[in-house]
Amino acid sequence: MSRIVIIGGVAAGPKAAARARRLMPDAEITIVERGRLISYAGCGMPFFVAGQVKDFNQLFSTPYGVLRDEQFFAREKGVKVLTRTEATSIDRQKKEVAVTNLDTGESYTLPYDKLVLATGSSPVIPPIPGLELKGVHRLNHPDDALKIMEDLEEVSEAVVIGAGLIGMEALDALIKRKIFVSVVEIKDQVLPGILDPELAAVLAARLEEQGVELHLGEKVLRLEGDEDGRVSRVVTDRGTLEAQLVIVAVGVRPNVELARAAGLEIGQTGAIAVNEHLQTSDPDIYALGDCVENTHLVSGQKVYIPLASTANRQGRVVGDNLAGIPSRFKGVLGTAVLKTLNFNIARTGLGELQARELGYDVETVVNSTHDRTHYYPGHDNLLIKLVVDKSTRRLLGAQAVGGGEAVKRIDVAATVLYFGGTVDDLAGVDLGYAPPFSTPIDPVQHTANTLRNKLSGLAKTIGARDLKARMDAGEDLVLLDVRMPAQFNAKHIEDERVMLVPLNELRQRIGEVPRDKEIVILCAMGTRAWEAQRILEGAGYTRVRFLEGGLQAWPYEME
Amino acid sequence: MSRIVIIGGVAAGPKAAARARRLMPDAEITIVERGRLISYAGCGMPFFVAGQVKDFNQLFSTPYGVLRDEQFFAREKGVKVLTRTEATSIDRQKKEVAVTNLDTGESYTLPYDKLVLATGSSPVIPPIPGLELKGVHRLNHPDDALKIMEDLEEVSEAVVIGAGLIGMEALDALIKRKIFVSVVEIKDQVLPGILDPELAAVLAARLEEQGVELHLGEKVLRLEGDEDGRVSRVVTDRGTLEAQLVIVAVGVRPNVELARAAGLEIGQTGAIAVNEHLQTSDPDIYALGDCVENTHLVSGQKVYIPLASTANRQGRVVGDNLAGIPSRFKGVLGTAVLKTLNFNIARTGLGELQARELGYDVETVVNSTHDRTHYYPGHDNLLIKLVVDKSTRRLLGAQAVGGGEAVKRIDVAATVLYFGGTVDDLAGVDLGYAPPFSTPIDPVQHTANTLRNKLSGLAKTIGARDLKARMDAGEDLVLLDVRMPAQFNAKHIEDERVMLVPLNELRQRIGEVPRDKEIVILCAMGTRAWEAQRILEGAGYTRVRFLEGGLQAWPYEME
Repeated sequence: MSRIVIIGGVAAGPKAAARARRLMPDAEITIVERGRLISYAGCGMPFFVAGQVKDFNQLFSTPYGVLRDEQFFAREKGVKVLTRTEATSIDRQKKEVAVTNLDTGESYTLPYDKLVLATGSSPVIPPIPGLELKGVHRLNHPDDALKIMEDLEEVSEAVVIGAGLIGMEALDALIKRKIFVSVVEIKDQVLPGILDPELAAVLAARLEEQGVELHLGEKVLRLEGDEDGRVSRVVTDRGTLEAQLVIVAVGVRPNVELARAAGLEIGQTGAIAVNEHLQTSDPDIYALGDCVENTHLVSGQKVYIPLASTANRQGRVVGDNLAGIPSRFKGVLGTAVLKTLNFNIARTGLGELQARELGYDVETVVNSTHDRTHYYPGHDNLLIKLVVDKSTRRLLGAQAVGGGEAVKRIDVAATVLYFGGTVDDLAGVDLGYAPPFSTPIDPVQHTANTLRNKLSGLAKTIGARDLKARMDAGEDLVLLDVRMPAQFNAKHIEDERVMLVPLNELRQRIGEVPRDKEIVILCAMGTRAWEAQRILEGAGYTRVRFLEGGLQAWPYEME
Repeated sequence: MSRIVIIGGVAAGPKAAARARRLMPDAEITIVERGRLISYAGCGMPFFVAGQVKDFNQLFSTPYGVLRDEQFFAREKGVKVLTRTEATSIDRQKKEVAVTNLDTGESYTLPYDKLVLATGSSPVIPPIPGLELKGVHRLNHPDDALKIMEDLEEVSEAVVIGAGLIGMEALDALIKRKIFVSVVEIKDQVLPGILDPELAAVLAARLEEQGVELHLGEKVLRLEGDEDGRVSRVVTDRGTLEAQLVIVAVGVRPNVELARAAGLEIGQTGAIAVNEHLQTSDPDIYALGDCVENTHLVSGQKVYIPLASTANRQGRVVGDNLAGIPSRFKGVLGTAVLKTLNFNIARTGLGELQARELGYDVETVVNSTHDRTHYYPGHDNLLIKLVVDKSTRRLLGAQAVGGGEAVKRIDVAATVLYFGGTVDDLAGVDLGYAPPFSTPIDPVQHTANTLRNKLSGLAKTIGARDLKARMDAGEDLVLLDVRMPAQFNAKHIEDERVMLVPLNELRQRIGEVPRDKEIVILCAMGTRAWEAQRILEGAGYTRVRFLEGGLQAWPYEME
């Protein structure tokens, strides 16, 4: 009878245990978990804080309402779970794990035939004085969520430190609690590593419109407290923010101490190195989830991208391998999605900078679209960016931000990336269309088509940042706005270089457009400006570009 | 200067014209349209009837509010549109199209260098007496929608003839108008050709629960009217239905008369034959949209699947080719999606029967899932079916039905189909997960995993129809329901062969489960039953199966 010991009982460990059990009815399977809670939905914590999930136990329960506790694992899965039990060392020769019961202090060893490391990750603790103050929290563990909930009542202002995935979900949760939130991020954009700068800038502008105070490129120096030892101020290198609650969300690092002490190979990323079977450098020890590094399927490089989805998919692979089925985990695409306020955010593959650093000959596009037909109620906007390699036309990455259905489009792009497909492939898939779901040409395909127009030299564009820089440098451009007068009057770039000629008058009034200047065409979403570019070029104009993604992608001031 | 004539001004024609114009500033482009209206959102008509689209003109307008009329095409696109002008014949030698102005009767010819046929489709008119009665409508053309709207006021009961895509959208529209609707379909299921029978049966059961009266496998013999010549009854081969409004939606056929008269090749499907460049048998004549047949990318066969999404994607390809860019339209996947009542319905690739008829060694799975984490508010159910080829594991088709986000999953499956990927590929893509969007293992990947368990011989299942047939035949089965007692008491299959042992008691109470009988395990969604199958097999039971998709996939009566 095979003895399997799994260290870690949150997501990856239980999944591997359940799969192994289904494949090996007779195996002796033991999960060792340091904490009190097991098999919980860590990703659900922000939604509990937000008040969207009312019942805390739901986050620890099966869809059919059974609490996933030790008894559940014993009864339904035939898996023994030891909670409050810490694995302290691994003896690879004897094939034993030394464990200590954290309540009783009792220490003993668990023999194994196969060992699984699902030791997860821990929040990074930044070197900021004052983290010990009351009201300072993280949002990684269920206990964090409970502590935040206890604290919420007296809070009117909060600061989130870190504008990454968890930081933005924390922002959303606190806003839903009617708390004024400031976000301080040391990098100069929101969602660094997730969104490219131009999409992040648009998102940031929209968040600020909704009352979020963003402090980007700003460093927290210390937290200060009141006489009760409760946090009251966040001091940064640029000022002081009042706050009765602080959530620190500056990322996680893999828990590799046990593996390292056992002499297992640690990868370049700092996470445990595994092969396609999720075997560590010791063939009798597997590792998965937040403690391992993965192969990026686009770049081929090792990356550390800890996500619940990866942990779950890996659980099946480890369960298979424990049972002698040589399943493989090919790798990840860097797909990440989140919702904050009313924005859906999704990305997959390589960002533009990553792609350039890897030596690709990069072309990109930013495109504004509707997520559904414009006449269907509830349709919303999307801003989609694609990154491709010019020479091969291979898709390298995709990102989307907006009130519209972003994740669907990024899932399709991820599938194209998985197969190494091109931008032409992305445009060629027969995706589902009906007015409640999409536009006749799906937004991601419309974006692919715009990029194909750029690749063929037909569409000539300029990004918002470049245009802003050239305007600020005082360049003698014509900014030709081709929207309807009512749209123009509602909001436009206030600049003397701007002129208005609606698209439906452009062919007739083309003589008004100067021939001796470079022309940048503006419209709401880019579609009309693209049409106008071709009209002007057809009339012999040679220096014509349009603003990519239109004014929807313009994160700067308008009047 | 190139002269391009395009016959047809609804969707495909204008799209090809716009693309050609952007590529060829100097071309003379003329669209000939028999009707009064051009460039309209035919797909939007049901939503106008439903009252979801308030302003009829929205269906003829750009997203920025400009009416897409003749003037719009002249001004913004530089394209001449001749409405109420019918193309009556093509002289391929002279390269001329004979046209007649339907208002003035004037006839003349239009010379062309390249001709484009975008003649669309027409509703099939079934051989039913009484179609001329007042209150009998179709729902294909904007005029149909307007006529229905004029008629709605006095209607309390309506009959939709045909349970296809448009029929189901018509049903939805009328229900939203608080009209009692019966649907009569000559085939024995809803959405024939779109959904496989077992998914159609579940959908039908759910629609009936919501008060829709379905008459499947029933043939309409005639429509009868009152003294005012208004329809009052629909007489079928099984009875008579009261109705003050009838919508006939029994499919469309391609408009090929002009092409056939010109000697162009008509394909086996009855639609115009085109190559990958969408060229007809005359290299100077292109055809696209609802009048052409396409290559199915999975089967390689020619199919007639007229859809707006295909027409639009083809418009770009034709525009390119008109300008000398040899773009290709590879084909379609048979993707089709719709919403009716609160159900999202989507399919792509081959249905099970199609796949069997093509000689594939077919395996399938039906799987119940949540579309998002069960604790996230607003999550809903999905029933997903996958079809694969056993020997190659290649994905052949996918279908989904439910209140949950179905289209996203089918779009991912379509992308896998496009690349000829396997069920393992489908399971291996790094899709986006966060609680507002998905489950840690996406529903379509969970379904793929269940199918992989079937393919490896591990999961042993029975479909609802087979189980029902065996029950009805009086077979001596044990139906082992492993849900919680409260779930069981709320609703279960009322049959003396049913026994209840909740999953969390099964390991302890296994002695109660007969060893001498075949056991079929039931649960809500299939997950627990699968677990139970492995528990029983682990304990030496050999004849154990579980109901695929659980009771969510059970379309028959429960108590």
